[in-house]
Amino acid sequence: MQTALIGIDIGGTNIQGVAVVDGKISARGKIATRARQGAATVIADLVELVHKLAAGKKIQAVGLGIPGLLDAERGICISSCNLGWQEVHISRELSRRIDSPVLIDNDARVAALGEWSQGQAQNCRDFICLTIGTGIGAGIVNDGHLLRGARWSAGEAGHMILDPHGPECACGNKGCLEALASGTAIARQGRAAAAANPSSLLAKSNDIDAAVVFAAAQAGDRAAAQVVATAMTWLGLGVANLVNLFNPRLVVIGGGVSLAGEQVVAPVRAQVHRYAMKVQRETVTITTSSLRDAAGVYGALELARRGL
Amino acid sequence: MQTALIGIDIGGTNIQGVAVVDGKISARGKIATRARQGAATVIADLVELVHKLAAGKKIQAVGLGIPGLLDAERGICISSCNLGWQEVHISRELSRRIDSPVLIDNDARVAALGEWSQGQAQNCRDFICLTIGTGIGAGIVNDGHLLRGARWSAGEAGHMILDPHGPECACGNKGCLEALASGTAIARQGRAAAAANPSSLLAKSNDIDAAVVFAAAQAGDRAAAQVVATAMTWLGLGVANLVNLFNPRLVVIGGGVSLAGEQVVAPVRAQVHRYAMKVQRETVTITTSSLRDAAGVYGALELARRGL
Repeated sequence: MQTALIGIDIGGTNIQGVAVVDGKISARGKIATRARQGAATVIADLVELVHKLAAGKKIQAVGLGIPGLLDAERGICISSCNLGWQEVHISRELSRRIDSPVLIDNDARVAALGEWSQGQAQNCRDFICLTIGTGIGAGIVNDGHLLRGARWSAGEAGHMILDPHGPECACGNKGCLEALASGTAIARQGRAAAAANPSSLLAKSNDIDAAVVFAAAQAGDRAAAQVVATAMTWLGLGVANLVNLFNPRLVVIGGGVSLAGEQVVAPVRAQVHRYAMKVQRETVTITTSSLRDAAGVYGALELARRGL
Repeated sequence: MQTALIGIDIGGTNIQGVAVVDGKISARGKIATRARQGAATVIADLVELVHKLAAGKKIQAVGLGIPGLLDAERGICISSCNLGWQEVHISRELSRRIDSPVLIDNDARVAALGEWSQGQAQNCRDFICLTIGTGIGAGIVNDGHLLRGARWSAGEAGHMILDPHGPECACGNKGCLEALASGTAIARQGRAAAAANPSSLLAKSNDIDAAVVFAAAQAGDRAAAQVVATAMTWLGLGVANLVNLFNPRLVVIGGGVSLAGEQVVAPVRAQVHRYAMKVQRETVTITTSSLRDAAGVYGALELARRGL
């Protein structure tokens, strides 16, 4: 009987899934994340998605990327702001409904697995995958090992404090990298720039997000360019610190913000060149993800594969 | 025939060595580092020290901790400010003179090996050993692996930039952790405080180093206490960033500055409690080294042992 391996990436907005049969992708699916309806609804939706992707084949294993704090060994989501979850025994709950092992990991680490197996970091033993969207998370691979930390919480690069007097972060601290350079931070700074500069292109938008700010900057709008320059200066400083700490061969920037391409990579490269140490800066290549929003789902698939 | 395993820690001021025969320490030695006389002199001194420590026994392996940038695989010291070395093929040079394999690693990583094998981090799989003296370096162990990075340069925690407008660092950047909280930085700030506060205890000292500043702060001197408080606030912020990134079970603070004990540990704990994320701060214990200045030599011994 044919078997299916399934990868699922749970995002704050959408849940994406993919199935592999005989080494080839056999199905893809995408549904809305009904986080507000509670964990039971999301789990029921996951069961339905898994069955649809498996299309009657026996399920070998499911890999699941979850935005939040996990105990991956015990299969528990300890807490997730995006999903509103607290102590959800997701592996056990899902596993008994689909009669298959369910492996979980944090979304940032899962994205790194995706880059490792299918993206820019193939065959690389030392790299950092930085996912920049609503927040900033990192999956860090050193000498072929994905860092997990003592309690599965390594990689919180978004909460590296770079400016103790900087803007407030969702975590309660000030001046975290995430508060300075995430999509959320860029959007917030874009709205402030629009209010302060009524002639700015930004002031013409009703719904300023990071993409709007990058587009306005690209179009030559001075206020937007200033917002981008400031955020990317901080991002580059954060990446330089990571490069000094980890001495990676590669930094892959993914997540929504990475879609701005050279507007992100060029200033980050400049900062790394300026601030990283000689060997570190000579060793590293900075690039954006080529997987766009699929790093998570490919990584979840890899997680399932490793669980076999 | 009995064999000897030898560990040597090269510091900017002294070279320490230890020999183990039949699993027991058989000899210890300490000589001055004659760095100014050039690499050839230091190598000749090392040969003499090794022979003295081995005391006629066959040398199985020598482990060597070196303050500087290395290619440990090829046994080359690429550069060392403290020793004035550039591209010194130290393993080859020493190895052919003593007829034994010579393994090298960076002094901060070697100190972590010392803590792992003989100190506070025994049986720990996730820890950071921060050595704070002239500079600041880190040896980081994650899931039982000592991080080396793509080109043996991981762990440069001293050059994590925390204040882009802060004091100049020896590396050329501004506001590196090392420029804010190393022994050198504390001494410099102590001298500035003495100049600005003629009634301070500090102003009575002709030779202000970090130990003098800590002692004056302990004795209630306000200017010294302010210097200590500022430096330890930055150190604690740096440690909190590391704790968020690595989620370690333990942070061991070693090096000269760690001899101030609670004056270092208490403010660092307070900052980690304030700035680190929940799981991270609940997982971690902050302590000073119990090995004092011997972490390096024990680590070098462990390096030799691993090389067998």
